[in-house]
Amino acid sequence: MGQRNESSDTRESIMRATYCALCKHGYADLTMQDIAEEFEKSKSLIHYHYETKEDLFVAFLDYLLDHFHEHVENIDSDDPAERLHHLLDLFESGPSDDDKRDFHVALLEIRAQAPYTDAYREQLRRNADDLHDLVADIVRDGIETGQFDSVDPDEAATVLLATVDGIRIRRATLGGNGERDAIDGLLSRYLGWEGAE
Amino acid sequence: MGQRNESSDTRESIMRATYCALCKHGYADLTMQDIAEEFEKSKSLIHYHYETKEDLFVAFLDYLLDHFHEHVENIDSDDPAERLHHLLDLFESGPSDDDKRDFHVALLEIRAQAPYTDAYREQLRRNADDLHDLVADIVRDGIETGQFDSVDPDEAATVLLATVDGIRIRRATLGGNGERDAIDGLLSRYLGWEGAE
Repeated sequence: MGQRNESSDTRESIMRATYCALCKHGYADLTMQDIAEEFEKSKSLIHYHYETKEDLFVAFLDYLLDHFHEHVENIDSDDPAERLHHLLDLFESGPSDDDKRDFHVALLEIRAQAPYTDAYREQLRRNADDLHDLVADIVRDGIETGQFDSVDPDEAATVLLATVDGIRIRRATLGGNGERDAIDGLLSRYLGWEGAE
Repeated sequence: MGQRNESSDTRESIMRATYCALCKHGYADLTMQDIAEEFEKSKSLIHYHYETKEDLFVAFLDYLLDHFHEHVENIDSDDPAERLHHLLDLFESGPSDDDKRDFHVALLEIRAQAPYTDAYREQLRRNADDLHDLVADIVRDGIETGQFDSVDPDEAATVLLATVDGIRIRRATLGGNGERDAIDGLLSRYLGWEGAE
């Protein structure tokens, strides 16, 4: 158990160091040395756990997904509309609010690598599918409670996630932040949710 | 006039060479030499027109916008719903259908550079604002003809463009192409357009 906690703590520390290094340097020029500099323990410990930058980033994408699930589980509401709102907000933000824009830009760089790097593509697909299922389930619940119109939950998940994704990419690359209202309008007009406006 | 046509032809040839080189090599490692290899005339002519890779890519983004406008002007219909459909289809595809995925991935790489490169950010913002106005105008027309519900045209442009953007990025990076139905569902449910389904 002690062993397990130690390695889970080490993982957490390496992932935090990766996050900080990514926000500081972006993805393209990032070296294992940059990550080691954000890490309080020895650099060799990073190499012991992750042989290459690619291994480390696959683990990082998986960590983001775990982190996301943790947040979703902690949403303090059973109400589908409130849960959906929280989830879309989470998806828009990063693991922390600091460096949010830098983080999203770096994430975009990693996504642009997906066509060339099988391991990234597989992990990103896993993240996307998982997120899709989470949103579709909440939409399904909201239809059952009568809060949402009777839409196809899978279509709704595709539309909602694509919209939030498109908006946060625009914001990360071009700046501005006035588009949150558009999401509320979408929830209201597309899902028929009366609480959105 | 001859001079003007010659330089407009040269621009067109350089832009086509840039497009081909971009699809072949992606953005990150692309050199002026790679572009010269796709160009039937002398390399010095490229340097005469565009001093740096950055200058050339700003011109390329502007060229994409011109190209897009040309396509939009050529849409053979005055019907707002049909025009919107065509425009969203165009936005989803590249200047040519060949190498479409490679092109979108390269474009994503350029967008990921926007936070660090003022000239890219300004040109990309111009492209985005322009596209937004085009879509908002069509939505406005469709509301006037009674084809669309009375939505806020600016909100609708944000939602529609973000959704298509999110979907094409997912497709370019992760593959798959089943999401076109989601756009039709969105047009139908969000805009109340009865022709979409």
